[in-house]
Amino acid sequence: MSRASTPVIDPVELTRDLIRIPSVTPADEGAMDVLERHLTALGFTCRRLAFEGPGGEGVHTRIENLYARRGTASPNLCFAGHTDVVPTGPSEQWSSQPFTAEVRDGVLYGRGAVDMKGGIAAWVAAVSQVLADGEPEGSLSFLITGDEEGPALHGTKRVVEALAAEGEIIDACVVGEPSSSQQLGDMIKVGRRGSLNTWITVHGKQGHVAYPERAANPAPVIARLMARLNDHVLDDGYENFPPSNLEITTIDIGNPATNIIPAEARARLNIRFNPSHTGDALIDWLNREAGAMQAETGLQITLEHLCSGEAFLTEPGAFVAAVQDAVEAVVGRRPEASTTGGTSDARFIRTLCPVLELGLVGQTMHQIDERVPTAELETLTAVYRQVIETVFERL
Amino acid sequence: MSRASTPVIDPVELTRDLIRIPSVTPADEGAMDVLERHLTALGFTCRRLAFEGPGGEGVHTRIENLYARRGTASPNLCFAGHTDVVPTGPSEQWSSQPFTAEVRDGVLYGRGAVDMKGGIAAWVAAVSQVLADGEPEGSLSFLITGDEEGPALHGTKRVVEALAAEGEIIDACVVGEPSSSQQLGDMIKVGRRGSLNTWITVHGKQGHVAYPERAANPAPVIARLMARLNDHVLDDGYENFPPSNLEITTIDIGNPATNIIPAEARARLNIRFNPSHTGDALIDWLNREAGAMQAETGLQITLEHLCSGEAFLTEPGAFVAAVQDAVEAVVGRRPEASTTGGTSDARFIRTLCPVLELGLVGQTMHQIDERVPTAELETLTAVYRQVIETVFERL
Ligand SMILES: [Zn+2]
Ligand SMILES: [Zn+2]
Repeated sequence: MSRASTPVIDPVELTRDLIRIPSVTPADEGAMDVLERHLTALGFTCRRLAFEGPGGEGVHTRIENLYARRGTASPNLCFAGHTDVVPTGPSEQWSSQPFTAEVRDGVLYGRGAVDMKGGIAAWVAAVSQVLADGEPEGSLSFLITGDEEGPALHGTKRVVEALAAEGEIIDACVVGEPSSSQQLGDMIKVGRRGSLNTWITVHGKQGHVAYPERAANPAPVIARLMARLNDHVLDDGYENFPPSNLEITTIDIGNPATNIIPAEARARLNIRFNPSHTGDALIDWLNREAGAMQAETGLQITLEHLCSGEAFLTEPGAFVAAVQDAVEAVVGRRPEASTTGGTSDARFIRTLCPVLELGLVGQTMHQIDERVPTAELETLTAVYRQVIETVFERL
Repeated sequence: MSRASTPVIDPVELTRDLIRIPSVTPADEGAMDVLERHLTALGFTCRRLAFEGPGGEGVHTRIENLYARRGTASPNLCFAGHTDVVPTGPSEQWSSQPFTAEVRDGVLYGRGAVDMKGGIAAWVAAVSQVLADGEPEGSLSFLITGDEEGPALHGTKRVVEALAAEGEIIDACVVGEPSSSQQLGDMIKVGRRGSLNTWITVHGKQGHVAYPERAANPAPVIARLMARLNDHVLDDGYENFPPSNLEITTIDIGNPATNIIPAEARARLNIRFNPSHTGDALIDWLNREAGAMQAETGLQITLEHLCSGEAFLTEPGAFVAAVQDAVEAVVGRRPEASTTGGTSDARFIRTLCPVLELGLVGQTMHQIDERVPTAELETLTAVYRQVIETVFERL
């Protein structure tokens, strides 16, 4: 493929084109088509993977996904991201309409500007610049989903399963989430805590408060159990992870009557855990604690668990160092390798290859007036180009 | 007033007349009129006291009450009761319609049969028999309300306040609630536990479970506080009262989001307490415990309290002994003086005079097919007559 045959893409204009498509999860609205057109022009072989099934609240959804690869050489450096965005909130609170992509005083406003249409556009632009310079010594690929901000049931998770099943090799992956904290390039994310939700029900026996001996009150049992679980120290941290943390997210009985002992009490907790735990080990611990409380009180206690991601850490090594060096070369500061923050699709990709997150400053993500200075889109493009070149030099 | 001038009343027929009036709280439907007619015929001076204002759920209600007195001599022996009844529940589940007062095989069926139209009718019949025998050595009075089964805001409470304000003297009072447990006359109630409801709110700071350091979770605080309050031993009992008892009746946060730390947690508890406590002392204790938890955790905790009745005990003495002797003389067994069960209007009357409860067997009260053998109405009439005579002999 000759140098002259591929276009060079403007990251700001592509970001604006993508923002103008109101692709609020699970709607695609043609966002994937725009990307596919550009990538095809850049010589990528594009495969659409649409998955469907029950979404988060049981509603049937159909999700567009895209896996695009250019070349067959090794290594295969993948960029992963999502074209879906969170809802705008009250649009009258925005200083300009959230899907018009207005630029004012050098700042681009719009839903998805930093999370993460800007990141996708910058990587596409960086790829176009790399290709304008010559054929890279490896493959480039894109793993793009339309289901990251929603339940994430039919997005990256299923694409990764499909790629693994057919033996597709990816050697390293950059996720374009807005990983920067205060200034562009000050932070990359090299791991994430795992997340476990547990629903707890204590089954008692209803009765009248004047005759407690004929009832079995589940309220003090759930209070004691939740206090005990909350007070347990899970660990003191793990490498560059903070200590694992348990939060009780709700306790509910819903008894309107002041003179009635309720029949049932429910609670839910969430544990964000570092790699010193697995979801299964935590589930075992919770089951044991509930079993002990059941034995103490004689009241039946049932639990349901949902581990939505194991903890993982992309250990320091050639890939992480190459990315840190590349960022430092462009912005003049070495990014901190962090494991803070919520979950991302990196939790699925880590089963395929080393993965890290590198992107814009996340401060306005999910907010009214989400925005990015256009200069930062240009800088991120330069950073991404340097990342591609450094990774291909070293891996 | 001569012997011949007063009618003798049949307790079964009067019970049936009263049951046929569907006086479900707060409706009167003419029940008070029926009583007033009979009492006037028996020589009573009847005063209607209607009180109105917001009812239990803020609905404006108007409640009929009756204070009737015959004579001005001392002592004044009062009978207290209520003409209102609880709802019937599904009337198709009754073996006969709940307001038709059918008698089958010597058993009278109907809402209010034991709680407590039967009790009222038996006392009226007993009075008519006493008067047929001659003028009693004291006054007889009736304190009848139409608001006992409901919120009890405009019933006996306000009548007692009005009587106290005008200096009316009542020397002793029998409340006609169905106090008997298994057999007629096996139990009288000589006191009741007090009841305190407390609403507790822990004020935290909402946040994301991934960033607990930016939030303040009220859930573990309310869990720990409720467990601590629940585990506190209030006392070991008091004379013939059981130990005071605290029940957590609800805990509610209502947070639907698995990734959000909630802003607020609420709970409610009820304490049934014996005379070793007062409502105010318990409120002080709860406020101190909440204050200590607030100091430990830094989260603000607010409490609201409602004491709906202090504990009381009508101490053994001439009145209680006279009633026990009277019952024993008629039924051949001495009634146990008990303090068990829910609240009754005795909690208001106790501020005026010694008060106890004596009435039918309560097993079918508030249930489908509430019923009483007609023979028990006759026996209760005989018991009540003996009570009136014995009290007048001894007080
Ligand atoms: Zn994102
Ligand atoms: Zn009653």
